[in-house]
This record gives sequence, C-alpha cells and structure tokens, in this order.
Amino acid sequence: MDLYHEKLHQAGELLDAHDLDLWLILVRETSEHTDPALKLLGHFSLTWTTAIMVTRSGRAVALAGLGDDEALRRTGLFDEVRPYTQSIGPELVRLLQSYDPQRIGINISRSDVSADGLTYGMYLNLGDYLAGTPYRERLVSAEHFVAALRSRKTPQEVARMRAAADLSMRIFTATGDFLRPGVSEREVAAFVHAQTHAAGATTAWDPVHCPGLNAGPNSPWGHTGPSDEVVRPGEIFHMDFGVQLDGYCSDHQRVWYCLRPGEHEPPAEAQHAFNAVKAAIRAAAAAIRPGVVGWEIDAIARQTITAAGYPEYPHALGHQVGRAVHDGGVGFYPRWERYGDKPYGTIDAGMVLTLELGVRTRYGYISLEEEVLVTPDGCEWIGPPQEELWLIR
Amino acid sequence: MDLYHEKLHQAGELLDAHDLDLWLILVRETSEHTDPALKLLGHFSLTWTTAIMVTRSGRAVALAGLGDDEALRRTGLFDEVRPYTQSIGPELVRLLQSYDPQRIGINISRSDVSADGLTYGMYLNLGDYLAGTPYRERLVSAEHFVAALRSRKTPQEVARMRAAADLSMRIFTATGDFLRPGVSEREVAAFVHAQTHAAGATTAWDPVHCPGLNAGPNSPWGHTGPSDEVVRPGEIFHMDFGVQLDGYCSDHQRVWYCLRPGEHEPPAEAQHAFNAVKAAIRAAAAAIRPGVVGWEIDAIARQTITAAGYPEYPHALGHQVGRAVHDGGVGFYPRWERYGDKPYGTIDAGMVLTLELGVRTRYGYISLEEEVLVTPDGCEWIGPPQEELWLIR
Repeated sequence: MDLYHEKLHQAGELLDAHDLDLWLILVRETSEHTDPALKLLGHFSLTWTTAIMVTRSGRAVALAGLGDDEALRRTGLFDEVRPYTQSIGPELVRLLQSYDPQRIGINISRSDVSADGLTYGMYLNLGDYLAGTPYRERLVSAEHFVAALRSRKTPQEVARMRAAADLSMRIFTATGDFLRPGVSEREVAAFVHAQTHAAGATTAWDPVHCPGLNAGPNSPWGHTGPSDEVVRPGEIFHMDFGVQLDGYCSDHQRVWYCLRPGEHEPPAEAQHAFNAVKAAIRAAAAAIRPGVVGWEIDAIARQTITAAGYPEYPHALGHQVGRAVHDGGVGFYPRWERYGDKPYGTIDAGMVLTLELGVRTRYGYISLEEEVLVTPDGCEWIGPPQEELWLIR
Repeated sequence: MDLYHEKLHQAGELLDAHDLDLWLILVRETSEHTDPALKLLGHFSLTWTTAIMVTRSGRAVALAGLGDDEALRRTGLFDEVRPYTQSIGPELVRLLQSYDPQRIGINISRSDVSADGLTYGMYLNLGDYLAGTPYRERLVSAEHFVAALRSRKTPQEVARMRAAADLSMRIFTATGDFLRPGVSEREVAAFVHAQTHAAGATTAWDPVHCPGLNAGPNSPWGHTGPSDEVVRPGEIFHMDFGVQLDGYCSDHQRVWYCLRPGEHEPPAEAQHAFNAVKAAIRAAAAAIRPGVVGWEIDAIARQTITAAGYPEYPHALGHQVGRAVHDGGVGFYPRWERYGDKPYGTIDAGMVLTLELGVRTRYGYISLEEEVLVTPDGCEWIGPPQEELWLIR
C-alpha cells in the first residue's frame, strides 16, 4: 500500500470516529488556489471544479471535468471517477443521493488554516448545487476530522519525516564545518540553500528566512532574512532550519559557540544556559504521552527554565510538523488568549511536534528545537537531539 | 518605481474606477494557504492573521501580528504597518473607522478562482471582527476590480512576460535540435525540464504535464504525462509548453514534421492543416482591439478553420496569461454554457491572451498557440509566432 492509499484508508477510519458519513473536498484550478487538505490524499492538478469524496466505508469517488478525469483515474486511489461536461451540480446531487449521507464534512474552520480550504465563492456555489435537496442542511465542518487525518502520521509518513530530519542533520553537520570566524549570516544561508537543493529538497519554509540565523547578540530577531552579522570568537551562532523532502518537513534549532584564541570550552554562563535549555526540553519530553493536554507540557518546560533563573520564552513550546512546517491543530501552547482553544487540545499517538525554547545571553541567542513522535507510551526523537554546545574552532 | 509599487499605484486607480473605497485582503499562514491576489502586490510570507488594505487614494496599510510586521515594513510598499498582539479585530475596526469606507471590496467570487481568495472560515471571522459596526454591511465582492488589476499588465509586467516568452522560444529551438527519430516523449520532457531549470525558471504549469507532448497520431491527449511514443519519420511532433520566469508565465504550442528518407517537405495534407491553423489564428489576431467582446474573436477563428474544411476545436480560442498560466477573467471563449459569463467579457488594452487551436491529422496533432498583448489600437505578439511547419531531418 503506498502512502496515499494508507492515508485514504486512515480517512475512512477517522470519518467513522468523527461521525461523518462523507468528506467532500471542492476545488478548481488547483495550480492557482488549492485546498491544503487535498495534498494529504495525493498530488493533483485539477483545472475545472472537482469534487473529491471519501465515505465512512473508505470508498473514494471523484467528480471531475472531462479532461481532468483520466489523471485522477491513473492515481489508482479512486473506486470511481465520473467525468462531467456541462455542470458538476446535477452529478454531485445524483452521487450524494446514492450514498444519502446524514453528515457531510466540508473544509471550513475558523481557527485551523489547514482545515479551512473551501473559499467563500465555492461555498456559495456548493449551496446552489445542493439547493432543493436535503444535503444542503447536512453540511458540517470537517475541521476535527481533517486535523486528525493530518496529525496522526502513518508509518510511511513517519519514515518520510525521519528522512527529512536525517537530511537536516547532515546539513547542520556540514554547516558546522563551514562555520569559521568572519563568515556572515548571508554566506551561511547561501551555503545551506545549496546543500538543500543538491539533496533534492527545498527549505521547510520561505527561503527568505529559512534558515533563520543569529550570529552573536546583535543579530535582529524575527521573520526577517539573514543579516551582515558574522561569526565572531566569543559569540554564539544559532540556526533554525528545516527541509521539505518528499513532501514532508523537518524543523530543528542548533547552536554553536565560537572559541576565542586560547579558549578550550565555552564560558560557564553560555554552558549554563545551554544546559538549562536542554534540561527544559528533556523535562517536557519525559512527560509526553497520549492523552496529555498541550498546555501541561508547555508548563513543564516553562517552569524548568524559570527555575534555572531565566525568563519565560515569549512563544509556545511546540507546534506540529508534517506536510507543512506549522502543520495546524493542537500543540504545546500556553494558556494565553492569543492561542485560543489550541492549548486545551489532547495529544495523540502518531503526532509529530516540536519542543523549542531559548534564552538570550550576552554571547548570543541560545535556543534549541527538537522534534518528537508521540508513541503509545511516550515519545521518540525525530532526529538525534543536540547533546552538547557545538564548538567553532 | 519597482513592479510592486507600479501595481499598487494601479490598484488605487482601479479602485476608483470600480467605485470601491477600500480593498481588504485577509490571510493567515500564507505558506500553507494564501490568497492568489496577494502575489499581485508582493512576495509575502505571513504567519498570523494579516489584513492588507489599499484605499481609493492608493494608500497601502497592513495590520499584522507582531513578528510579521517588520518584513512587511521592509517591502517599502506600505504607508503604515501596524502590529497587533492579542487580536486583529479591534485594530481592524479602528483602522476602518479612520477611513470610513462606504464600499469595502473583499476577495470573493463564484466564477473567478483568482478573485476568490477568502476562505469561508476567514469570512466568518471577518464578520465577527466587524460585528456591531457599519462595516459588516459594506462588504462587497472585489472580483471585477481584482480581475482588472490582474489582467491589465503594467509596463514592467509586460517586460517580464516578454522575457518568459523569449526563454520559451530558446527552449523550443533547443528542443528542435534535440528531436530526431526514435526520441521518446519522456526523453523530450526530461530535456525540456533540464533546459528550464538551467535557465532559473520553472514550468508554467505542473511539470507532470508541462511540456504537453504528442508524438504522432497515437499519443494520448489530455492532462496526462508524456508517453512512450517516439518521434517517427512521416509524423508530427507537437509541444505545448511555457515557463514561469520572475513570477510571470508564457504559454505556446509548436509543431514539427519529421521528414521521411528522401522527403524534402511535409506532405500536402499536413502543410494544408498547418496553413489553416495559422490562418485562423492570424484572422482572430487581426480583429483584436480594446472593446471587442471575447466570443467574437473566438468565432472568427472558429469560422476560419471550419471554412477550411476542418472540425471546430473542442475548447476556447484563448485565455489570459500572467502570474498564472490561466490567469482568470475574460478570454476568447465561445458562447457555450460551460463557460458561464466569460464569453461576454470585454477585451481591454494591457491584457495578454493566448490564441490556440489545432486539428487532428493522420500524421498527428497540428496545433498552434500564440500569445498577444492587447494594445490601444490592436495587438502585438508576445514571442514571435510560428511561421512555417518546422522540420525534423
């Protein structure tokens, strides 16, 4: 079973668990505007309005404009692909009548971008297609189903995420060899981009600020590009980076200290900060298991780092990773108003999440980010975590 | 003035022409799901819910989550960038109160994918932000404004489209040198992809079926990938191809005839078909000027090709090209129900459109596609049109 069949099979099971009889994705001209949930099921390029449906029994059906139908058929995913010529509406109604679903999930969500793929114009069109039928009143948000389908990684998805993390680790290692006093953030970014492309991957987020780099304490922080700051003896070099490989992302942060002439180890203050950050991440990881609530894990890391004498980090401890680097749904969010309902979500087995936090020191920004896969009784690292503050000599 | 400033200036003028006081784009996590209209104004990567607004006077203002704001400011496009921390709603209302727009255009469209970027969930959120204010009732579709902004190419956009077409032409020429008896569609696709990437471009549509290739009469037609069919003496080779270079697309079709041993020119029947296709495109081009209605131009080509003894082509004569290869809005569509209102749209100066049609012959599919820029008194080719049936020796 290939990855997309595996995901389709999972969709059938999750529809049942979420009491949905049918999931309906409605898209058009996907090269110009697609539904982010569509890529969970396959690589599709659709010109005309297309309805992709999965039933509670796991049956997959597509209604597509004549000309788009053959490519859908060739994916081998669908039990049935019906082409239409004039309008999708009458065919869609006929198809719904044959299944007579009581609850039809559509991709609308106020809080989860990844589950909110239906545009307002397409929603109006759908209402017209279903006018005068009982199905219009049976449309419900599929957001919780979509979040589960996206977040519960199948074995093949986990394998791809491990491969992405392995590549990231090789690039972090190569970058460590490249770093020397005088090298600028811009030069490091160009080096990392070349390594990424040579491996057949892309950066996990916009290459304008992936990798995110901080050379020393004066490098600007936030979603801006690399600066002209350079690696300097006696300073920290920090890199936030991930790749997208075979459709799946990685996301890690690593830190180096550049030794001064005659120095053999980092200053005690930098070492203390690194140890505290690492300890906070390890304490959080030790508490992760299915059924815990996101904010509880954030609180453990937050308490650990403040108990070590550092301020709270001004963000969440972690988000999910997958097809997107910010993969939507629940995560390790603090109970702050800006995070809405997200902190209260339950962590499930199969989710991949980050654990990330840092502290500012006079040597620079010492921040780590690790990835974990939630297992039935705990969690496992995706990519080996950073054990020591790496040294630039 | 750079391209984005040029486009922003045009937006102000077009808002006035469309009697809109303010254009509001609302997006979040644009790496996962963006509004297709956003790329007309710039390359943005936004994490949190962001409102981008342009007023009738051409003033550009953005409301963005703290952390996204600095990158917006650095674009130099905005008169004001206001960061928010807790919720975008109250700031958005305050900003609207300061302009007090009577008609607020938002990106919703039932028929134009490029003008339908607002998701249903975001529409609900927007309704909540504006609850209790007069602005909720002042929201109207910006679709005609968005279509005009996209379709009326500025001088810098035209220059980029010419550059994309020039690159396409170089790749068509190189492909002609590569073609020889026995070369398969798959080998040609790989060659074309390598040429495209070496030039720093990408294919104009999904590389799975760009280039679209037809070697001889038995190659399958439609949105499927290249087949194992090969170039054969006595047969036609057809290629539908475009690049995306610096954000703008090209789209052309070219045809070759592979000479048999001892043959010095194409068979009369193939030559006749080529001449008829070329003549139909030229007749249509000669009639293009601002103010004509799309279906009238399609009808000229359709009459020309049927008068030459060939069947009607089963599609529209042409679509717009720009940031997307199918750039939305009006085009040269026949008055068929499936095209809705599109055939009745008026052609304006500054639009770039394709002229494409073909006929099936026993030698293969003889189809051409040219691009024209509509000028104040007619049209100009974008990329030199194909004058002769090219020969593979």
